[in-house]
Amino acid sequence: MSSTITLAEYLGRRLTQAGVAHLFGVPGDFNLTLLDHLATVPGLRWVGSPNELGAGYAADAYARARGLSAIVTTYGVGELSCINAIAGSAAEDVPVVHVVGGPATVAVVGRRRLHHTLADGVFDRFEMAYAQVTVHQETVVAERATEQVDAVLLAAMTYRKPAYLSIPQDLATLPVDPAPLARPLTVAAPTAAELQARLSGLFAVAERPVLVVGHLVARHGLAEPVRRAARQANIPLVTSLAAKGCIDESEPLFRGTYAGTMVDRGASDLVADADLVVELGTVATDVLSGFFTHRTPDEQVVHVGAAELAGAVRVLERLCAGRRFADRPAAPRPAYYAPADPDAPLTQDGLWATVQEWLPPGMAVLADTGTSFWGAAALRLPDDTVLLGQPIWNSIGYALPAVLGQGLADPGRRPILFIGDGAAQMTVQELSTITAHGLTPIIVLLNNRGYTIERALQSPDAGYNDVAAWDWSYLAAALTGDKVEYRLARTAAELRHALDVAGSTTDSPVLIEAELGARDTPPLLRALAERNDSLQR
Amino acid sequence: MSSTITLAEYLGRRLTQAGVAHLFGVPGDFNLTLLDHLATVPGLRWVGSPNELGAGYAADAYARARGLSAIVTTYGVGELSCINAIAGSAAEDVPVVHVVGGPATVAVVGRRRLHHTLADGVFDRFEMAYAQVTVHQETVVAERATEQVDAVLLAAMTYRKPAYLSIPQDLATLPVDPAPLARPLTVAAPTAAELQARLSGLFAVAERPVLVVGHLVARHGLAEPVRRAARQANIPLVTSLAAKGCIDESEPLFRGTYAGTMVDRGASDLVADADLVVELGTVATDVLSGFFTHRTPDEQVVHVGAAELAGAVRVLERLCAGRRFADRPAAPRPAYYAPADPDAPLTQDGLWATVQEWLPPGMAVLADTGTSFWGAAALRLPDDTVLLGQPIWNSIGYALPAVLGQGLADPGRRPILFIGDGAAQMTVQELSTITAHGLTPIIVLLNNRGYTIERALQSPDAGYNDVAAWDWSYLAAALTGDKVEYRLARTAAELRHALDVAGSTTDSPVLIEAELGARDTPPLLRALAERNDSLQR
Repeated sequence: MSSTITLAEYLGRRLTQAGVAHLFGVPGDFNLTLLDHLATVPGLRWVGSPNELGAGYAADAYARARGLSAIVTTYGVGELSCINAIAGSAAEDVPVVHVVGGPATVAVVGRRRLHHTLADGVFDRFEMAYAQVTVHQETVVAERATEQVDAVLLAAMTYRKPAYLSIPQDLATLPVDPAPLARPLTVAAPTAAELQARLSGLFAVAERPVLVVGHLVARHGLAEPVRRAARQANIPLVTSLAAKGCIDESEPLFRGTYAGTMVDRGASDLVADADLVVELGTVATDVLSGFFTHRTPDEQVVHVGAAELAGAVRVLERLCAGRRFADRPAAPRPAYYAPADPDAPLTQDGLWATVQEWLPPGMAVLADTGTSFWGAAALRLPDDTVLLGQPIWNSIGYALPAVLGQGLADPGRRPILFIGDGAAQMTVQELSTITAHGLTPIIVLLNNRGYTIERALQSPDAGYNDVAAWDWSYLAAALTGDKVEYRLARTAAELRHALDVAGSTTDSPVLIEAELGARDTPPLLRALAERNDSLQR
Repeated sequence: MSSTITLAEYLGRRLTQAGVAHLFGVPGDFNLTLLDHLATVPGLRWVGSPNELGAGYAADAYARARGLSAIVTTYGVGELSCINAIAGSAAEDVPVVHVVGGPATVAVVGRRRLHHTLADGVFDRFEMAYAQVTVHQETVVAERATEQVDAVLLAAMTYRKPAYLSIPQDLATLPVDPAPLARPLTVAAPTAAELQARLSGLFAVAERPVLVVGHLVARHGLAEPVRRAARQANIPLVTSLAAKGCIDESEPLFRGTYAGTMVDRGASDLVADADLVVELGTVATDVLSGFFTHRTPDEQVVHVGAAELAGAVRVLERLCAGRRFADRPAAPRPAYYAPADPDAPLTQDGLWATVQEWLPPGMAVLADTGTSFWGAAALRLPDDTVLLGQPIWNSIGYALPAVLGQGLADPGRRPILFIGDGAAQMTVQELSTITAHGLTPIIVLLNNRGYTIERALQSPDAGYNDVAAWDWSYLAAALTGDKVEYRLARTAAELRHALDVAGSTTDSPVLIEAELGARDTPPLLRALAERNDSLQR
């Protein structure tokens, strides 16, 4: 056998082969040996977070941009603190490898009562919990260590889901054969024979096809081939709410956002009227289907899931090369935002109208769950804009740490974050990490003193929806060594001015605190609240 | 059937019967109906936290003081965010009832693809994860709803472990018969017949007995009966590290902290030399056993676990009434802290010596995992002092939110918190809740710019142990509406002055930032690090 390397180095090199250049996480006593040896891998940089939940959200955003990411936590206390983030990655189809530094093999075999356990000699509890939210789990044993590393990474990459890898502290330095590294891991191409037959038949007779682009198209990096195929055959495209931004809205074949009848009537009518609907990597949750007002599957609807997506896109490319459909006029797209009164107290409508006017191309828009997401969802996005949100999992507080992951993964694109105060209170410490790593996002804090989405959905006056008032200017200064430029916006004019300042302040983060009414909501959230009502009880 | 009440009200009244007056948690769309109806229960107050992890830690501390607590979260995103806190409650034997507001029954039965799920129609994933860390789980069905509520509460109270209760949103308002409320839930008295026979035999021949008081004695509220029994029979007492403070250290029979040979040699020798060791509610983890240097069980060691503890204490009381052992001289207890040079740069030794001199009786000392816990563990505690820490689970960041729970549960006792900067960064937002609810803790922030316990254990110079520098004065002001009195302490004299100011500033929280060296540790942590080394690999 040739000279060996440590298992930690093997893992690190596998990650860099897959495009991972940053490791997120928090150190803890069971992962220190692992971190010491991962640190020796060229091209891999440690990004320590104040807590694991923030690190998990950052890793999620990084994987969306890079196709894979890794978070390293410690056994028990660490890994459990980010299980919500990892579950979110599962719901939203994001390939995050969760690497846990575990107790030494000898302690596990001896059923020792260790700290970070339930003091009962049982060591697989947390992996069992993770089995509920990850696609593959391995706890490394010496005999199969590199195989297990490869299996976890490949599962994450293949299914675009999070996967779980626990490395006992004694095995981080296990000498392993580096030979497998000569062949980078590659995802096997799925066959799509059955799909090909079905699609061919439908293509032959269709006159009014439409492609529905789901979030999995973005996760698999297939937006461009899909767009090319659509152009070749002249097929109109709509995107799911979870895929908004992955097709430029200026694309002549783009026909809007499809979320049942909720967001965009033109898109909905187009799908309803089509004689061939190809749903590429969509999922019809309550929110994404406009509360189950989407076209339900019938003989003319072909749904392509995660496993067959890559194969299906190749089939589509072949079929599109052989057919050109007739032009169909585009229905007018809804304009949700009209220019705002510049000097009246700021409203949600005014905020989003101002953002719409200002927003330049080429940014990453991060929109937290709540009024932020629903406001951003109705924007007409400029070209080359990435939109990040969590419309499937909907965990508030996600988008602030996501700035860290998105910013490091895709440094050429300035992030602009929209987040409510209630959401920001969940994970605000990541502002510190964002700044420490030299990122310069624009953060628009929608301050409405609480959980306005819940006020809209059910309980407009409940005290539990109010959160404590924080001084966001002081807070930003405290967490960043006073490196954040702060602006308060109480009118549309002030917001516009603040955005202009932010646009030209490129060497530091800019925090714009937008004062909004506690019950004021953007138009799409009003539509959502009405539909939610009918479902809940 | 008599007039009904809602299931939410039933739950609320059961909780108040058990001494619960505060509900911790975070609202979310699936629990709003539940919260609306819990709000109608007299004597139950909502304590909303910025995030679920903080709420979970607060609930843990509250249950330690009150014998039970409840946290309310929402399905998926909410419940998973505090599973680390609940696992900590499991490890440390703390009865927290985790109430989750779940999706409506019709959605679950219909396997609807809802937000806050993995969009796969599977709804029991998160309960399955919780099955790993709670003693009992119920997802409420209409036919057995009150039974299920009672089963969860009773399991938590009986086993002093967390338990899980999921209430679908449509069932929060289920009309139920209030009749069972006429009989408050009571924990069945365990029988201890076998134990009685064994202990009687050993009592008859013993000359040098010792009682080892474990944390379960505190959890079951049995410290006073144990102390009375010991006095009656003249038996010396030692406490486990996890039970420090539950017997006043001025008690003439108190002989120190027993953690194998690690903390207190006199206590260790006493146990080694005894011809009868009664271990009451102890658990021998790595840390609590001084890394497995405790006396291993033999014929003269009787270990009493959680299930038989109450019965065992009654047996002990009977036996102690019939026997009086001879006096034995107490070994001198170690004095870890010598008076500090008042004007030299502050050291860990100087900090704890200053605290030792200053600390008045009657406080609640909260010590986070890390140098804080190990510093506090070597204090000689004044009478009537409660010490809260997590020496079994050891999750950093626990103790700051624990101030909220402890303070609300036990308002006559001022909390003093010791926490490192790395730990405080995990959960700092709870400072806001603490202040909003009128609590006035003293917070000593041990600022050593990172995770010093990890520097001590393994990697003194690793960059991953450094955390970003925060401005704690600004931060405290930002989170509390400028209600915190701030002091910086760079010497023992400044610390002493700050503590004196804090002692007389009773109407607001006081934050004392203590500047410490990055590698400086208290003496017990040095001992721990040496022992840990030998175990790890």
